[in-house]
Amino acid sequence: MTDGGGTWVLGVDSGGSGVRFALGRAEEGSPAEVSASDEPVRTGRTGIDAGHLLGQLVPAAMELLGRVGADRVAAVAVGAAGMASLGDDLRAKLPPGLAGAFGVRRVALAADAVTAYAGALGQRPGAVVAAGTGMIALGTDLTRWRRADGWGHLLGDCGGGAWIGRAGLEAAMRAHDGRRGGSAALLARAEALFGPAPELPGLLYPRTDRPAMLAAFAPEVARCAGSDPVAGAILREAARGIAESAAAVCPGGRAVTPGAGAADGENAGAARGVTADTARGESVSECEVALTGGLFRIGDPLLVPVREELAALSPSARTVPAAGDPLAGALLIASALARDELRLPHHPRMLWVTTEQDT
Amino acid sequence: MTDGGGTWVLGVDSGGSGVRFALGRAEEGSPAEVSASDEPVRTGRTGIDAGHLLGQLVPAAMELLGRVGADRVAAVAVGAAGMASLGDDLRAKLPPGLAGAFGVRRVALAADAVTAYAGALGQRPGAVVAAGTGMIALGTDLTRWRRADGWGHLLGDCGGGAWIGRAGLEAAMRAHDGRRGGSAALLARAEALFGPAPELPGLLYPRTDRPAMLAAFAPEVARCAGSDPVAGAILREAARGIAESAAAVCPGGRAVTPGAGAADGENAGAARGVTADTARGESVSECEVALTGGLFRIGDPLLVPVREELAALSPSARTVPAAGDPLAGALLIASALARDELRLPHHPRMLWVTTEQDT
Repeated sequence: MTDGGGTWVLGVDSGGSGVRFALGRAEEGSPAEVSASDEPVRTGRTGIDAGHLLGQLVPAAMELLGRVGADRVAAVAVGAAGMASLGDDLRAKLPPGLAGAFGVRRVALAADAVTAYAGALGQRPGAVVAAGTGMIALGTDLTRWRRADGWGHLLGDCGGGAWIGRAGLEAAMRAHDGRRGGSAALLARAEALFGPAPELPGLLYPRTDRPAMLAAFAPEVARCAGSDPVAGAILREAARGIAESAAAVCPGGRAVTPGAGAADGENAGAARGVTADTARGESVSECEVALTGGLFRIGDPLLVPVREELAALSPSARTVPAAGDPLAGALLIASALARDELRLPHHPRMLWVTTEQDT
Repeated sequence: MTDGGGTWVLGVDSGGSGVRFALGRAEEGSPAEVSASDEPVRTGRTGIDAGHLLGQLVPAAMELLGRVGADRVAAVAVGAAGMASLGDDLRAKLPPGLAGAFGVRRVALAADAVTAYAGALGQRPGAVVAAGTGMIALGTDLTRWRRADGWGHLLGDCGGGAWIGRAGLEAAMRAHDGRRGGSAALLARAEALFGPAPELPGLLYPRTDRPAMLAAFAPEVARCAGSDPVAGAILREAARGIAESAAAVCPGGRAVTPGAGAADGENAGAARGVTADTARGESVSECEVALTGGLFRIGDPLLVPVREELAALSPSARTVPAAGDPLAGALLIASALARDELRLPHHPRMLWVTTEQDT
């Protein structure tokens, strides 16, 4: 019940199912104490609601600090879903709020893909795929971030849970209609899960969580993939989508022209680089790719084709296990920030850092 | 300004942009007078609002009858989008409402695909594809209806406007990310139409008319198809989707086992019939396929591959021009009903007919 003179840091992971907190020593980087709330932070007209997050964060941090007998933290890192596009309120209000509550001056606000990256690979260059209902890939050579996909269920998320489930339900409806490309096995699974096929549109379209309902069918597609060729082809194409995103963000996996390739809209010019480089078989440095997120609980029916597709697309890529989860990643970023050792690239929307002195 | 002793019938076409009315002689089947309202019929908890439709239909019919100096109609046929799943209120209230207003006892309520069919092919066996934002195919051998697709933008509508636009925008985002399968030309068109690519999700997902926004990009894909291979491949795959649906509903285009193949959920058993039949190259009777709806205004970039894919899939199919539109189809059904010559198959949800006598 004493802080032993060490430096404490706080990591926060804010997601769709709630907020998790981890307190650890800056020197160790692993959590000493953790807690969680099952109340997701609200999103309002100004984006993610900073006041709502602070209202959970401050008492949770107080409680964790109390457990170790400390009263201040040297750095805080918050990873949040939607930070890239919805983080304005957080960037404006979280640093002064945290300074007022704990005297902390070092604050990092990160997109959830960045905390997933840090949790999986630490501060090494490489790439991470985060796949659940959606799918996004993020890579860095430690000079800039590259992002691929993560555009949602209508514009991309190619190979994610909603993508797989949607393709599976389309194959079910094809079988129902007697169209080419149908799967009787997937039709049977769809009707077992959701009822008669013709009533599926009436169940799906009125919902606000359509991607989640689509993703709920992904495990059924995976279950059929071993015996049903249509389901197998869907998982193969999902694996290809995931590998394409991983390959696009792998540092060293292709020629990176200076100025091209940053996250959030600057890497369009490199579009044709992938195929050309791999076709020439150039010698490039190895790229570690970590596959993270709930979708990969599907296991081998997805993992095996992902590794095969990635090997074909980007011979320098090698899949590696993720060391930790996004909460561990947030804590790692906070620790690095406290020790002046943050090497992951700063970026206004991906990894925003403030180290202002008290004025 | 006199009815000349003839028998008058009324056709009604209720769609997303309003309601159209056509009055004609039962003996001729072509409209003598037409009018239109730009107020779409409301859909409420009980489906399409019968009171709202009657409130437009009765004065419109009165006005049309006044133009020709008549005061009664022998039959009314109403085609409505959503009739198959949302027609309960119409089936309950429209016949008594029309009986009360005009003394009419012969009423047909048809899915909009059925009026599209009747407008395009009259009462001949064949198949019709109706494609706009969505896509549905309907065929009949005059003993039963076969339906394929029309399941909406997440479960199917394969090859429709939203499908083409969505695929085009995915290719744009792939180019933005530097992923394989991207199209720089489509990225340029997407940014010209909607602004910077990374902001597209924020524009699209909050809307309630997402399929319409996706479909708005379909003409851009068509415009690029001649010079951009990715856009060309999207139109080719759309054409395949359309041809697959047409082939699935063509009478005589495949073995039809008795009891299988009716619309609305009974034709799953015939799923494997298509490929087997065409592979054997059996001699089957010719099937006329009419391509209708606004999507085909794209013209040759879509029509040419549709004809090629259909020929490959179903050698007995032959595309023919549509004789008329869904309003003409509604009038044709009303005329046939008045003359006791309706040969299109009755069906509780596709073509519901009442000819009850006054009691």
